[in-house]
Amino acid sequence: MNYWLRCAISALLLSAQLALAALAAASDLPTVFPPNVKIVHFSSASLGDERTMLVMLPLDYDTSVSRYPTLYLLHGYDADITDWARGTNLSAYATRHHLIIVTPDASRSWYVNSVGNPKAKFDDYIVKDVIEYMDAHFRTIPEPFARAIAGVSMGGFGAMLLGLEHHDMFAAIGSFSGALAAAHHEPPPLPANATEADRKAREENLALAGPFGSKEHMDRDPFELAARIPVEEVPMLFIVCGGEDGNAEDTHAFLALLAKRRIPYEYREISPRGHDWRIWNEEIPVFLDKLDHLDGFGSALPERNPEHHTP
Amino acid sequence: MNYWLRCAISALLLSAQLALAALAAASDLPTVFPPNVKIVHFSSASLGDERTMLVMLPLDYDTSVSRYPTLYLLHGYDADITDWARGTNLSAYATRHHLIIVTPDASRSWYVNSVGNPKAKFDDYIVKDVIEYMDAHFRTIPEPFARAIAGVSMGGFGAMLLGLEHHDMFAAIGSFSGALAAAHHEPPPLPANATEADRKAREENLALAGPFGSKEHMDRDPFELAARIPVEEVPMLFIVCGGEDGNAEDTHAFLALLAKRRIPYEYREISPRGHDWRIWNEEIPVFLDKLDHLDGFGSALPERNPEHHTP
Amino acid sequence: MNYWLRCAISALLLSAQLALAALAAASDLPTVFPPNVKIVHFSSASLGDERTMLVMLPLDYDTSVSRYPTLYLLHGYDADITDWARGTNLSAYATRHHLIIVTPDASRSWYVNSVGNPKAKFDDYIVKDVIEYMDAHFRTIPEPFARAIAGVSMGGFGAMLLGLEHHDMFAAIGSFSGALAAAHHEPPPLPANATEADRKAREENLALAGPFGSKEHMDRDPFELAARIPVEEVPMLFIVCGGEDGNAEDTHAFLALLAKRRIPYEYREISPRGHDWRIWNEEIPVFLDKLDHLDGFGSALPERNPEHHTP
Amino acid sequence: MNYWLRCAISALLLSAQLALAALAAASDLPTVFPPNVKIVHFSSASLGDERTMLVMLPLDYDTSVSRYPTLYLLHGYDADITDWARGTNLSAYATRHHLIIVTPDASRSWYVNSVGNPKAKFDDYIVKDVIEYMDAHFRTIPEPFARAIAGVSMGGFGAMLLGLEHHDMFAAIGSFSGALAAAHHEPPPLPANATEADRKAREENLALAGPFGSKEHMDRDPFELAARIPVEEVPMLFIVCGGEDGNAEDTHAFLALLAKRRIPYEYREISPRGHDWRIWNEEIPVFLDKLDHLDGFGSALPERNPEHHTP
Repeated sequence: MNYWLRCAISALLLSAQLALAALAAASDLPTVFPPNVKIVHFSSASLGDERTMLVMLPLDYDTSVSRYPTLYLLHGYDADITDWARGTNLSAYATRHHLIIVTPDASRSWYVNSVGNPKAKFDDYIVKDVIEYMDAHFRTIPEPFARAIAGVSMGGFGAMLLGLEHHDMFAAIGSFSGALAAAHHEPPPLPANATEADRKAREENLALAGPFGSKEHMDRDPFELAARIPVEEVPMLFIVCGGEDGNAEDTHAFLALLAKRRIPYEYREISPRGHDWRIWNEEIPVFLDKLDHLDGFGSALPERNPEHHTP
Repeated sequence: MNYWLRCAISALLLSAQLALAALAAASDLPTVFPPNVKIVHFSSASLGDERTMLVMLPLDYDTSVSRYPTLYLLHGYDADITDWARGTNLSAYATRHHLIIVTPDASRSWYVNSVGNPKAKFDDYIVKDVIEYMDAHFRTIPEPFARAIAGVSMGGFGAMLLGLEHHDMFAAIGSFSGALAAAHHEPPPLPANATEADRKAREENLALAGPFGSKEHMDRDPFELAARIPVEEVPMLFIVCGGEDGNAEDTHAFLALLAKRRIPYEYREISPRGHDWRIWNEEIPVFLDKLDHLDGFGSALPERNPEHHTP
Repeated sequence: MNYWLRCAISALLLSAQLALAALAAASDLPTVFPPNVKIVHFSSASLGDERTMLVMLPLDYDTSVSRYPTLYLLHGYDADITDWARGTNLSAYATRHHLIIVTPDASRSWYVNSVGNPKAKFDDYIVKDVIEYMDAHFRTIPEPFARAIAGVSMGGFGAMLLGLEHHDMFAAIGSFSGALAAAHHEPPPLPANATEADRKAREENLALAGPFGSKEHMDRDPFELAARIPVEEVPMLFIVCGGEDGNAEDTHAFLALLAKRRIPYEYREISPRGHDWRIWNEEIPVFLDKLDHLDGFGSALPERNPEHHTP
Repeated sequence: MNYWLRCAISALLLSAQLALAALAAASDLPTVFPPNVKIVHFSSASLGDERTMLVMLPLDYDTSVSRYPTLYLLHGYDADITDWARGTNLSAYATRHHLIIVTPDASRSWYVNSVGNPKAKFDDYIVKDVIEYMDAHFRTIPEPFARAIAGVSMGGFGAMLLGLEHHDMFAAIGSFSGALAAAHHEPPPLPANATEADRKAREENLALAGPFGSKEHMDRDPFELAARIPVEEVPMLFIVCGGEDGNAEDTHAFLALLAKRRIPYEYREISPRGHDWRIWNEEIPVFLDKLDHLDGFGSALPERNPEHHTP
């Protein structure tokens, strides 16, 4: 497991200092965007807070008469809402795939409803507030068959967690180097000489997901969800990991669990690739191509369904 | 590990009954072929025996003035030389990729030079007899940069073994659900109440690869070869396994070994897929597309050298 | 070594008169540019100074929804930010290769952080200020796999130095007649009858890179960096030199060092070609074609993603 | 210098056992050829012997009304007349470039007229017997502007030697990893304890090129010829070497000599590449493309000169 991710997961399991503060003002974003990328500020009831997200629209959105499928794309731990859009050619893909792509801000929440902090309901935030806002304010096709969720690293964990938990809401789940086992391994007991900081970190960990082995904790573990979901209800699964990524071993274990239950998936492992945008940039177009083969996606692509073409 | 393969590996590790008999006469082949597929009988010096192989030629071979790269495609345990050509659209791919594809017969040899049976030198048979015959009798480009080896199941083991051992002879190795660990796990000790048949099987196992842990045995284990080959000399590696295939776990271990040494590879795991032609038929075209990006392959592709076309 | 470059290197090794003054006002540029070339003034924190650079954008930048890979192209010693754009058809190539090309001003700095002059941190200026400014203000793909650095003469030295030192930031390095050994040969001892001017020049040399043989000096020598960089982390290397160029002999020595370590590279030497724009104009399109084969480049090329085109 | 080549050059400089025996019968050739490749047996007056060569004709030779430029392509030391045709797609290139390509047999002669063996006039054999035979028996354009010579390893030495010596006969010279300095370095004195075999080898060396430093020896050294040839009479020079090839250092010295005299050339060095067909297969098409730009070559290429097209 590489250092960055160890940091990230340590933060989850040991210290769990939830950075709930929303992104700074849009003018502080570290890049510029083409006109099809909207910076959306909205109020999240679940968090009781103002949040920000990027919405990438097909270039002809303003002049077309179509509705569009939607992909919710979750960021990683030390990341922000612009990471996916900067590390890949995402805004161009929204146009190419006739797709609305949303990258919501979730701080370092691990996308769970915190057990101990009633204001940190990030699960609800994504599947209720963000999706409802999008379906209300943009011409989405607001149906499960036209909605996908994916993410990178902590966001891959989040996509797998939310996608399996709310499997009736999504047609597909994508995990890009996801920290799929972030909630699956029991943290070691505190040593006798644990410091006050150690005890505090452990408490915060308990606050996030509850005691290891408890129902609350298991409900936040994609391994547990994958073991109990009815096989025929699993969304399409697309899983990617670099061979040198510290998550590769846990990912293999997750695949074995899926395979044991005959849950369909496609997995790609390339090496040498680490935990960075090189592999995510390579594989996100592959995921989008696969999405296009689902009933609710790719419907407007001229070269595939010429009679569906929107003016 | 699925049952078929357990049979196969049991046969290796426990009984190792080498079926050295060559294929029956060509007229006994269980199918018919288009005119670009040749059934070749030739004499193998290493085996002291007459053997048979299929040679798939580009459709314009007889009228073209080109030489072609060559792919040696190895069959599985309970299989014959027609399996690849029947389970996939292989003869069409030879034309599409301007490639000569060879499927030699190797019985149930596991593609090794038997330690105990001097007449069963199947490693030599492939890398000496088959390749020399092809280079002498067909318009191959008889150079390492234009030669690849791949196989399925026992043949995936064989391709990885021969490809790593003779890495200066091949530009690429493909393992399709290869039994990569067939020689990697120590067989359990014979129980006190072992039967005469059990003892005989163990003896035959020793005949094939020698005592577990001996130099001879390790020289026949792709894990050992992957651990010692100089990284910069590894051919391109393309590895495929079905999620439900009994080889998946061992394959994950093999990937971890490759990644630890920073050996480049691409791995694809799809599920639900077992140990059968559905996944091999899906993935062989992907492998052939990747081959085309190597220097010595795809050279005759019309879109690259348009003026290369012969009338 | 031809006279021009001897002047340049003499300036480094003997007199090292750093011309830190920024370019004159844009209106003073010695040419005119098409609309896709922007003249950018910005403030460099590393230099504590206002600097200028040219930014060449693909022609459809304003209407497209894509992000673009970026090439940082460094000028030579007696040169300015317009040299590359005047000596080659650079602004047309930005459009052809769907690439953002940046030519920053670096005076006669040799692109190093001066050991003796804390205000002359030109290494930081390029890899921090220039790149951060570009990534914040233009639609770059701000990732190593989509970023290249190249340069001519003193700029070839700079590209090799910065590219090897910060190898985790760049996918490719191009050296066009680079003065690769500018910091590699020990200056001869001052003669007994050295003048005051000679002593002053030697002092200024020491100010730039520190005493020959010191750690500071070696950290500014591409030969030293090439000898110590992990082989698998070297960016793609493209090296060009004219046969009559005074740098040819040193370039051969650099190649020998690369080859000894099995570091991949491609080298082209044409003759009769001197240290001028004839060869740089011939070879920059070859370098851009090679860039297009890297993962992060050429992604928007119409022939690869035909549906990618924006109206 | 790699081992093979050291052997080769040792054989020249120390033992020089000339294997003058011609190739065995054509039926013994280690491969098969398409119909545009002719195996030609003819009698060499210079050698007083029957020799063999391959002649590759454009596919439409028998039905066209054109004459064709000719490339003489020389083999290496431990090689035969089929090496170029097997290691590359040479017979296809004859058609693509509307070119006649000839690969004559020259044993291990180093392509020189032996000083000590009057029957081993391999220089005369190539430039008189082979060329005269070709011009008399095939529809060549029998003029210097439509004739090129190239070779690999010992054949690169031979091409450079014959091409510079008989510069009025060739429009271009290609050296692929040529052992250009094979006759340029003085052999070390025989040690006091030299064996009889050592003395015999030295004698044979003297037989081949005469005493080092003698006029005969210098006349067989491409460095000497390059130093004295009138610059304006040098054929087009295309030189290739792998970075890991033992010939790289000597090749750099040869380039420096050419550049010093302002002799035009193009040089390509790729790494990691050794002394084998990978780089020769990559670069021979580049050389053939360059030939096409000469006045006497490429005249029949439809896409370049449509009005020259032969039916």
